[in-house]
Amino acid sequence: MTTPSTTDLRRANLSAVLRLLHEGGPQRRADLTDATGLNRSTVLSVVDELSTLGLVTETEAVSDGTRGRPSAVVEANGDDVVAIGVEIAVDRARIAVIGLGGNVHRSIDVEVNPAQQGPATTATAIGEASIDLLQGRPRVIGVGTAVHGMVDRQGRLATGPNLGWSSLDLASGSRPWQPDHVPTFFGNDAALGALGEYRRGVGHASDQLFYLSAERGIGGAAITSGVSQLGANGFAGEVGHMVVNRGGRECSCGSRGCWETEIGESAVLRKAGRRTNNQGGAAGVLAAALEGEAKAVAAIRDVAGWLGFGLGNIANLTDPQTVICGGYLSDVLDGYRQIVEAEIAAVRVPTGLATPAIVASTLGADAALVGAAELAFDHLIDDPAQTRQPGRQDPPGERDTTRGAA
Amino acid sequence: MTTPSTTDLRRANLSAVLRLLHEGGPQRRADLTDATGLNRSTVLSVVDELSTLGLVTETEAVSDGTRGRPSAVVEANGDDVVAIGVEIAVDRARIAVIGLGGNVHRSIDVEVNPAQQGPATTATAIGEASIDLLQGRPRVIGVGTAVHGMVDRQGRLATGPNLGWSSLDLASGSRPWQPDHVPTFFGNDAALGALGEYRRGVGHASDQLFYLSAERGIGGAAITSGVSQLGANGFAGEVGHMVVNRGGRECSCGSRGCWETEIGESAVLRKAGRRTNNQGGAAGVLAAALEGEAKAVAAIRDVAGWLGFGLGNIANLTDPQTVICGGYLSDVLDGYRQIVEAEIAAVRVPTGLATPAIVASTLGADAALVGAAELAFDHLIDDPAQTRQPGRQDPPGERDTTRGAA
Repeated sequence: MTTPSTTDLRRANLSAVLRLLHEGGPQRRADLTDATGLNRSTVLSVVDELSTLGLVTETEAVSDGTRGRPSAVVEANGDDVVAIGVEIAVDRARIAVIGLGGNVHRSIDVEVNPAQQGPATTATAIGEASIDLLQGRPRVIGVGTAVHGMVDRQGRLATGPNLGWSSLDLASGSRPWQPDHVPTFFGNDAALGALGEYRRGVGHASDQLFYLSAERGIGGAAITSGVSQLGANGFAGEVGHMVVNRGGRECSCGSRGCWETEIGESAVLRKAGRRTNNQGGAAGVLAAALEGEAKAVAAIRDVAGWLGFGLGNIANLTDPQTVICGGYLSDVLDGYRQIVEAEIAAVRVPTGLATPAIVASTLGADAALVGAAELAFDHLIDDPAQTRQPGRQDPPGERDTTRGAA
Repeated sequence: MTTPSTTDLRRANLSAVLRLLHEGGPQRRADLTDATGLNRSTVLSVVDELSTLGLVTETEAVSDGTRGRPSAVVEANGDDVVAIGVEIAVDRARIAVIGLGGNVHRSIDVEVNPAQQGPATTATAIGEASIDLLQGRPRVIGVGTAVHGMVDRQGRLATGPNLGWSSLDLASGSRPWQPDHVPTFFGNDAALGALGEYRRGVGHASDQLFYLSAERGIGGAAITSGVSQLGANGFAGEVGHMVVNRGGRECSCGSRGCWETEIGESAVLRKAGRRTNNQGGAAGVLAAALEGEAKAVAAIRDVAGWLGFGLGNIANLTDPQTVICGGYLSDVLDGYRQIVEAEIAAVRVPTGLATPAIVASTLGADAALVGAAELAFDHLIDDPAQTRQPGRQDPPGERDTTRGAA
């Protein structure tokens, strides 16, 4: 309500220009003027300041062949300014270095089975992997971690039914992969997968997006007008435990007939007549179905029906514009789209309008990692001047929020 | 992104002060200074302008007994500045005059059965009722209409399964109850019931609210951080058609096993062994259950179980802070809370956290009417200077958005 101060305006301008470059890619300075509504001299000074902070680079002015002065091209400095994305899944973990601007420099699987080996061993393994990965990366501006469980932004894990973890403070447990003084963020894998797809994937520009994650467990998350819908406690989107079959099969969560008992990985294996610890997992059944194995085909067809059934219910509740199927469900959709869409149509209230677009994830296994890194970038972009280049002397009284790792 | 102009700031100040008075009731001028962060002289000039616009009244300065100068009390002018709220339900319609600040001056039932008599007769009946109701109300600032169907803000009705209406342009059909030049707004009854409860009822201050409407049909709506979650096409919240019983009983929407087939009014009557056109409706069954009629008790117990089952699913999807049961479901909750909560607990993923508060509506039958009027008030409050007092000369070039009716 009060008139914004000069400091607030300056920060807002830095933030707006950096966000445009982070989300929209390299741009001519003249285009930044148009996109922000700021005048030329303000854009010039904002870009200068971002450049001094080491967050953007400018290439020489080039003429685009039209009249008028040539305009310099400005770009987020994704080579030097990076975030770490971590994903802790049920039987695997992954870590990535992602540059400002969204380029995934490198991602590697960590040699660990979190559900079997527990939180401490998992943390150590991720920490060791991070040392190698961060070699020569002096400017880590933040760490985002996606967890396959019900975790809030501060890293308090209430429960992860498939991980078998509960009541953990992941923020303190994640020290092994946290460079000192670097801000850390946590989120549920589906919520961060949704954010990844919204910022960098097939969900880009969708005003009303629902993302479905599928691995050992089934999760979901909605993003409305760019805002992640996390719920009162951060535990929205537990669609895997939406009961679709009252009194049905027992679920790992303690309830019965959850959607996960019909479309989760164990269900896929069970329906195909395989043991639930089968190494091939859902991918193996999908491959067998492609080769025409009758039991596998029947199993995937059944899963496709239940997938459409649940999506129809979600559509009735939230009226999404785009529904993104992640994990192996993207393959189920690709192969059996007709079954999925017929079941959605049967369940969805007839609106006389187009049903939501049901699409396969484009980021695939990287979705949650990319989304996790976005949490760290958001923090930087909210106040770009908070960061300092390594080696530069901080003015007394300002805190150093960036430091090189290892 | 650009620096806000003086005009924008003035409008924002008028808007902020008027919203405080509309939502928070009468306040001392000194308290407005604290609440807005504006300085005394700005508040003085803002209140003066709102007073000139006829939107607020000031009472004489009174001392509150403490030191310092006495401060005038400012109040929204709810006696003179009113909105019309209309509700078109399946077998009834209702109209109300509601003052700025939220006071329901008068609400009356309209003699019409919309489903049986159709849209044209319904519109005429509401129009006739409005003439009487608006006698001596010169300043109607807008009309909000709640419809028991899938309608967007502009009044395009896609379908109302229980009304039996579809593909209608309600905006042009509603001329009989629209004073000329007055802005009109439309919404689904559940979405507006949620807004009513959020602004004026038991949902006040809930950051994550889910409202369940129950009459002939079952509807729902979510409000997150004060924002109505309407979905991509404005059709979110169709929880009555969430399928809870795949392959179950046929529903009016064409699907099978919808939640409405288990907790809707027809279901209540069916389970109690009554005809679905029984005049007593769900209220009659609830009354009989209170008197101990065995069949009625069994019916309501069964409905309570299905109510909890659906709410558990909604909780898994959206993690609400507060769930408000409207219509006769507020009575089901009051009488059979244990069954409802036990079923929610069975379905809800164990989070180790408090489950949402499940509460009965406090606005009751007025919820949707109150919410509908809030749409009109929102429009006024966004730009309070748009309104002109009747009889005042409008400066050339400005449009008259307010006129007395009949």
